Amino acid sequence: MQRAEFDVTGIGNAIVDVIAHADDAFVTDNGIDKGAMNLIDAERAESLYAKMGPGIEMSGGSAGNTMAGIASLGGKGAYIGKVRDDQLGGVFRHDIRAIGVRFDTAAATDGPPTARCLILVTPDAQRSMNTYLGACVELGPEDVDTDLIEASQVTYLEGYLWDPPRAKEAFVKAAWTAHKVGRKVSLSLSDAFCVDRHRESFQDLVKSHVDILFANESEILSLYEVTTFRQAVELVKGHCEIAVLTRSEKGAVVVAGDQFIEVPAQPIDKLVDTTGAGDLFAAGFLHGYTQGKSHADSARIGAIAAAEIISHIGARPEVTLADLVKARGV
Amino acid sequence: MQRAEFDVTGIGNAIVDVIAHADDAFVTDNGIDKGAMNLIDAERAESLYAKMGPGIEMSGGSAGNTMAGIASLGGKGAYIGKVRDDQLGGVFRHDIRAIGVRFDTAAATDGPPTARCLILVTPDAQRSMNTYLGACVELGPEDVDTDLIEASQVTYLEGYLWDPPRAKEAFVKAAWTAHKVGRKVSLSLSDAFCVDRHRESFQDLVKSHVDILFANESEILSLYEVTTFRQAVELVKGHCEIAVLTRSEKGAVVVAGDQFIEVPAQPIDKLVDTTGAGDLFAAGFLHGYTQGKSHADSARIGAIAAAEIISHIGARPEVTLADLVKARGV
Repeated sequence: MQRAEFDVTGIGNAIVDVIAHADDAFVTDNGIDKGAMNLIDAERAESLYAKMGPGIEMSGGSAGNTMAGIASLGGKGAYIGKVRDDQLGGVFRHDIRAIGVRFDTAAATDGPPTARCLILVTPDAQRSMNTYLGACVELGPEDVDTDLIEASQVTYLEGYLWDPPRAKEAFVKAAWTAHKVGRKVSLSLSDAFCVDRHRESFQDLVKSHVDILFANESEILSLYEVTTFRQAVELVKGHCEIAVLTRSEKGAVVVAGDQFIEVPAQPIDKLVDTTGAGDLFAAGFLHGYTQGKSHADSARIGAIAAAEIISHIGARPEVTLADLVKARGV
Repeated sequence: MQRAEFDVTGIGNAIVDVIAHADDAFVTDNGIDKGAMNLIDAERAESLYAKMGPGIEMSGGSAGNTMAGIASLGGKGAYIGKVRDDQLGGVFRHDIRAIGVRFDTAAATDGPPTARCLILVTPDAQRSMNTYLGACVELGPEDVDTDLIEASQVTYLEGYLWDPPRAKEAFVKAAWTAHKVGRKVSLSLSDAFCVDRHRESFQDLVKSHVDILFANESEILSLYEVTTFRQAVELVKGHCEIAVLTRSEKGAVVVAGDQFIEVPAQPIDKLVDTTGAGDLFAAGFLHGYTQGKSHADSARIGAIAAAEIISHIGARPEVTLADLVKARGV
């Protein structure tokens, strides 16, 4: 097989985050599922924004965050996602390119504006997301650059792609393209409610298309509708080559064939904002994987990247992750 | 005189900040005056943005930051400034209203987009600003709501308003309106280069229109073209009722008639980003002043607000300043 030009190409919903502090009462009073990704329409986005406190804007999107992490770790990445040709779309494009990720998907020239996610961070550092998909609904198979997928060691897909209607086709096209030339396909389950919305479809996917699966505990329990972590581990084992299961402060588990590798969480000084924890864990693991590291070391890099991201507001790294990993001696 | 409905109304350039980390070489190589506010045109804004690292977007603008500070301190404020009816204009309007500041200036419906300031923060926590004025050039006397000015104890103007062509007329109209009904007029000199561009005009202003002047050391030296702080103090004494002169870590001096009051800087754990230090000092002082506090206590509140803002990225408060002031027992 030809040497891959890119380590990872991510496909996802291209979103700008609008992050504000809020108290628990605000979250409850506005009917927001705390800790989850809530899908909202344009009208709700407007009314919720009007009620929120002052915000900061940062590029986000689950796979976008992961790709920023890959780049910060020193990896070579590319991204496929849909923005509009508006100011927020310009912000998204600038930020992902500025960190060194290739991003050439054409912007939509009409239709809804660039997607935004209204993120409310409560005093417990938990984030509740309210996503208006906007231009993301325009992403379709025509946006999948097959040359890019063929040139990437891993194609990484976020489960959130199941929400906009045509992205699923893009997803499947990308997976087929990758496998046809012997590349790997990776999926993050993204969110327990997202799994709930698309359970059967995700189960099929994991069995037939996914080599490397990322999920947190509630997502994997939801996927298999089981109540214990052990049951979920037994089920996932036969379905994909590697399953990386994250458990917040309890660390992470890598299940690969008969291997069951436990890695502790990286200690942090202060938990500030959990947004992007899963995205950055995936970045760290995939960076290790594409550099030929062991599963255990790859998971350790994931834990380091996740620890950095939850120590500050926002889901893109504030420091060069490669330096952090070097300092930790992994 | 009627009791004022508003403590302070600020008039300024309505700007969204785009903040990125940069090293000193980037600042030098791109011909940016370090620590200063550099005015740039649309073309330069685009080329500089393309070269910058990933950013975060936050509402800014000198007087906008000051008004956010007034609101965070528990004061009642309003703002006059010009955005366009675009996404960044929507962000600016949301953020200033969300903190409780009245902001009703009509958005421009054509012409240049909402202003942005590309802020590069170097490892020494110094900020170098690159401002594209955009829609701010549309601000004119027709935007000055005279009822609002008459209802405000203090009208606060940023010196940066001297840069867009018609804002000067707005400025003078506001000052006349305020004085006609016995209200106070306050000015911040904003930036030493800005003073340099408009020195004579500023000298006239300070003598004829300004009751409360804010300046840092380099700005007041530039205003009077003198070399020592003492010379500047002697000159400013006769020109306005109160001069608040800030000197970074050396604290601040309030000159009012024969009074010469020195207040130390508020100690901080870590200097992160100096953006907004002067804006928030002004907010603190004006809050104290409009609440009838002594000049010394007002300056102490200024020092507390400035210390908060330089402890994190961005020029809008991250915590409720009223709580901080209470905790410090001022």
